[in-house]
Amino acid sequence: MHDLAARLFPICRSITGAGVRESLAILSETLPLEVREVPTGTPAFDWEVPQEWRIRDAYVADESGERIVDFAESNLHVVGYSTPVDAEMGLAELDEHLHSLPELPEAIPYVTSYYAPRWGFCLPHAQRERLTDQRYRVHIDSELFDGSLSYGECVVPGEVQDEVLLSTYVCHPSMANNELSGPVVCAFLGAWLTSMPRHLTYRLVFVPETIGSLVYLSRNLEHLQRSVIAGFNVSCVGDEGPFSAIATRYGGTLADRVTAAAYAGEEPLQRFSFLDRGSDERQYNAPGVDLPVVGVCRSRFGDFPEYHTSLDDLTLVTARGLQDSLDGLRRCVEALEANRTYRAVHPGEPQLGKRGMYPTLSTRESHDLVGATMDLLAYADGTNDLLAIAERIDVPFAAIVPVAQRLAQARVIEEVSAPAPTSR
Amino acid sequence: MHDLAARLFPICRSITGAGVRESLAILSETLPLEVREVPTGTPAFDWEVPQEWRIRDAYVADESGERIVDFAESNLHVVGYSTPVDAEMGLAELDEHLHSLPELPEAIPYVTSYYAPRWGFCLPHAQRERLTDQRYRVHIDSELFDGSLSYGECVVPGEVQDEVLLSTYVCHPSMANNELSGPVVCAFLGAWLTSMPRHLTYRLVFVPETIGSLVYLSRNLEHLQRSVIAGFNVSCVGDEGPFSAIATRYGGTLADRVTAAAYAGEEPLQRFSFLDRGSDERQYNAPGVDLPVVGVCRSRFGDFPEYHTSLDDLTLVTARGLQDSLDGLRRCVEALEANRTYRAVHPGEPQLGKRGMYPTLSTRESHDLVGATMDLLAYADGTNDLLAIAERIDVPFAAIVPVAQRLAQARVIEEVSAPAPTSR
Amino acid sequence: MHDLAARLFPICRSITGAGVRESLAILSETLPLEVREVPTGTPAFDWEVPQEWRIRDAYVADESGERIVDFAESNLHVVGYSTPVDAEMGLAELDEHLHSLPELPEAIPYVTSYYAPRWGFCLPHAQRERLTDQRYRVHIDSELFDGSLSYGECVVPGEVQDEVLLSTYVCHPSMANNELSGPVVCAFLGAWLTSMPRHLTYRLVFVPETIGSLVYLSRNLEHLQRSVIAGFNVSCVGDEGPFSAIATRYGGTLADRVTAAAYAGEEPLQRFSFLDRGSDERQYNAPGVDLPVVGVCRSRFGDFPEYHTSLDDLTLVTARGLQDSLDGLRRCVEALEANRTYRAVHPGEPQLGKRGMYPTLSTRESHDLVGATMDLLAYADGTNDLLAIAERIDVPFAAIVPVAQRLAQARVIEEVSAPAPTSR
Repeated sequence: MHDLAARLFPICRSITGAGVRESLAILSETLPLEVREVPTGTPAFDWEVPQEWRIRDAYVADESGERIVDFAESNLHVVGYSTPVDAEMGLAELDEHLHSLPELPEAIPYVTSYYAPRWGFCLPHAQRERLTDQRYRVHIDSELFDGSLSYGECVVPGEVQDEVLLSTYVCHPSMANNELSGPVVCAFLGAWLTSMPRHLTYRLVFVPETIGSLVYLSRNLEHLQRSVIAGFNVSCVGDEGPFSAIATRYGGTLADRVTAAAYAGEEPLQRFSFLDRGSDERQYNAPGVDLPVVGVCRSRFGDFPEYHTSLDDLTLVTARGLQDSLDGLRRCVEALEANRTYRAVHPGEPQLGKRGMYPTLSTRESHDLVGATMDLLAYADGTNDLLAIAERIDVPFAAIVPVAQRLAQARVIEEVSAPAPTSR
Repeated sequence: MHDLAARLFPICRSITGAGVRESLAILSETLPLEVREVPTGTPAFDWEVPQEWRIRDAYVADESGERIVDFAESNLHVVGYSTPVDAEMGLAELDEHLHSLPELPEAIPYVTSYYAPRWGFCLPHAQRERLTDQRYRVHIDSELFDGSLSYGECVVPGEVQDEVLLSTYVCHPSMANNELSGPVVCAFLGAWLTSMPRHLTYRLVFVPETIGSLVYLSRNLEHLQRSVIAGFNVSCVGDEGPFSAIATRYGGTLADRVTAAAYAGEEPLQRFSFLDRGSDERQYNAPGVDLPVVGVCRSRFGDFPEYHTSLDDLTLVTARGLQDSLDGLRRCVEALEANRTYRAVHPGEPQLGKRGMYPTLSTRESHDLVGATMDLLAYADGTNDLLAIAERIDVPFAAIVPVAQRLAQARVIEEVSAPAPTSR
Repeated sequence: MHDLAARLFPICRSITGAGVRESLAILSETLPLEVREVPTGTPAFDWEVPQEWRIRDAYVADESGERIVDFAESNLHVVGYSTPVDAEMGLAELDEHLHSLPELPEAIPYVTSYYAPRWGFCLPHAQRERLTDQRYRVHIDSELFDGSLSYGECVVPGEVQDEVLLSTYVCHPSMANNELSGPVVCAFLGAWLTSMPRHLTYRLVFVPETIGSLVYLSRNLEHLQRSVIAGFNVSCVGDEGPFSAIATRYGGTLADRVTAAAYAGEEPLQRFSFLDRGSDERQYNAPGVDLPVVGVCRSRFGDFPEYHTSLDDLTLVTARGLQDSLDGLRRCVEALEANRTYRAVHPGEPQLGKRGMYPTLSTRESHDLVGATMDLLAYADGTNDLLAIAERIDVPFAAIVPVAQRLAQARVIEEVSAPAPTSR
């Protein structure tokens, strides 16, 4: 995953354009994606697809002709969606178009202006402070034109039409955690899903943030509202911070519960309120969309100092961080797959002794209940899914699943055909 | 308000009679009241209107003929509803008819005997202890006769028939906090309501406590149950104690919520349980009446030492205390007026940028949500009124109202025509 | 009760056989029981009635012929349901059939093997460690044969068909707390119930644990599900530990509430979760049975060190412990009998003064509400049973009952004919 991220890193992505397309093509080598193109001007709820942005070159040169700020060195140097410019100006005029971070003087900040025409350059604050008053040549060879917005999706079908939505974004230029960690982990997760037997259907979408998810939703809303039983928006999952979940709008959905269960008994899950949201969980949970999608991340966007700067690079994102995130999402998937609702076949406790599942010799020690087995049986009454039972009897979900499967195999409990309560 | 209280102070009020009528007439100068007369004997649920009480003079004189206890000096000296008496007696016999407070030796206590025939005098305990054994002349020139119970009401109509009930009592003689603060503040509140544009209808009632509210309810119950969305029983609002609310029978009604919201972010609201009730919130919340009426006060009846004594005078009640209470009730009214339920017009987040309500330049700083606006939008799904949203997103109600109004004006949210959930 | 326990103590009970029958006959002298016999092989849900066990003699003798372990000395010496054996063997072979407790070296442990054929002896660990390697004669004169399982029941009819189930077990040999305390207390409780006027019907069952309750349920399930409004499984109620309740499967049933109410204001009730269950509350609460039965005990099974050993004798169980448990269950019964749902006859507060239930003289002191009376009236709206009102107004249930009865007699509240909400 880290190698894939490194390969994707230099590409200049934005919410539209060649960078997104090239990134989707590379990701398709890991997980075959169907790539959709949606023309400029297409409405998406309250929004519409913006013009496409193409940039070839951009620099600020000093009087000596030296390029002191150069897009070729880092695509963060140019404000995203900058309009073209080719002019000479003094420092005062130039300065109005410069962005830097006094608190991180060596970092190039990441700035965009998608929905208002502007141009600008981003540079380390230390460099900005060294600029002298001279004539600067300012050049941005960019273009805004009617084109299309691109996104990729992959549906991994299961036995049932109930779907799990996995969404991540592909619209930031050279940043590692707040861009590449999500697509890379999702691509590997999708490849793993494809390879394993599965009950549920999985839908993986790779979209530009905000406008991309809105476009995707506007084209698929009815289907998604009918099918999605749980979803995850994957963002900033490449560092080694604690696995974190941002709750759905009201919390308590299957997505919230399964994320908690996947981490019960493992490293502690860091839980955020929906008020702490920031990525596309905003759109998925918005009124009128109402999909049960949690945001998953490690260090939350904005909580790590490198966020939205050139410091968010491939040293912040580690192979281990990516792997742990993949493992965490796998645990969520496994929990979703294993979560069933059972009811007892016989009234009263079943006689487990005759099935070799209960000691036949009753001593002081064995009189204690055979732990989780008896407790699971007590609540297998058709009203609780395994997630609810695990929580109630305070046993890690992963520990309860084999117990349930053994009891189902012994035919003392049976699966209730109705779907598990999802609390959507 | 303090001047009005001072003017009303000397009048000898009781649950019936000339004192109530005179008080209602004076209050009508501030807020025009329709005064109703309900004849003695009229049934009111489990009660009936008692005889009217008229008192002209009352005293205890010693052997020298000096009036040592004189109704003309303080109308608290006579037990309310005392039957007439004109007799001579020794100290022992007299003493059985005397009331005083050892713990407040300088105060005249306030005592009534509405529903059993008695006569009695109230005096400072210090004076009582100085009484010597001699022949006393005891004289009460009072009368109990078939008359009527008087109350006043004023309906301030709004755009809708949903009503806010404001009730206070006019039945105590010369006491300031536990009598005049309520009517005075309600009269000024009513005058202010009349002068301002309003959505809701307001019903202000000035009744003798208990029997008056029961009479009022028995004559208006069906209408009130159909119309009242929130109510306030106003009592003891003239001192400078913290603004306090006594919850409705089960709590959680619109009246409870709006009172809490009106004080969120301001000085803390002191909250009492319904078990701490004492004034006419008892009747309004009683089974079979079931109106969502909170009790509002400053220092709660019985929690201030001057309660029900001659010490509850115009020094305990201050101009500032009255004004703060009026302001508090105004805030409740404003919150009721502003509380609407909205839902998003478009699925997904609206594009606020194109409406000038969201920064078009995305930098590290601006990536944080635009505070309350985005959070309000997230919960404007037609199921939460603004009170609920304010609580959920932890923003003072007063701060959220202009945000909602701006969003509604921008047509990204729309009011849900169904009434807000009142949890009555 | 202690005498009755002493008389029952020496009998060798098991889940079937003469010991149970003899015990039921003795208990019938206190509470006449109908004794049922259910033949070996009869199915009971997932179980079936096992063969009957008869034991006449059992011992281990050393080379000198001395009986070093002798059933005649304590019936705990033989593993329950031991198959017959008559053999000579060395210490190594014998040792595989011995059971002892290193942590309680002087105690004989209680061991059974109901559902797998085995034989074995139990002895103090100290004695076991002194055994030398010699030839031992091992003799168990027992028999397993098609017979029947016995249980006793007694229905004490009331005015209504709603039933209270009281269940206890009669299947352990010579142990006092974890055997005899339950039947003895239940027999006395049943006798008391028979003697008193009662509204509800009471069903007392004396069954072998687990298989007995399952057999009983399988024969009476439909009736019990239709009739039982609350139940108690009575176990280990002879010591002087705190009265304890094991909650029903989800808690909050009438049985849970009444147990809590019976102890409110008295010594504190020790409350256990359903996860701490251990006796027949397991079966009564199991899925498909779903009866609202709490487990009541003093020291919980397994929480006292003498549990399931010869140390659980008539010194652990005391006359006072038994009496306190009987009193506690009586309080539960009295609470069940007294728990009604009332609603106000008149809207508003009733005029209690004219009925002599409210002071007619209003002074500072009397202006406080007349405590529980007014609070009870406030919540007597037809939606709360007395248990709920007692909890809400924080008055002991026992204190509220006479108040309610007096108000009902005064016809200011009336009973709602619908049954109290049982939350089953």
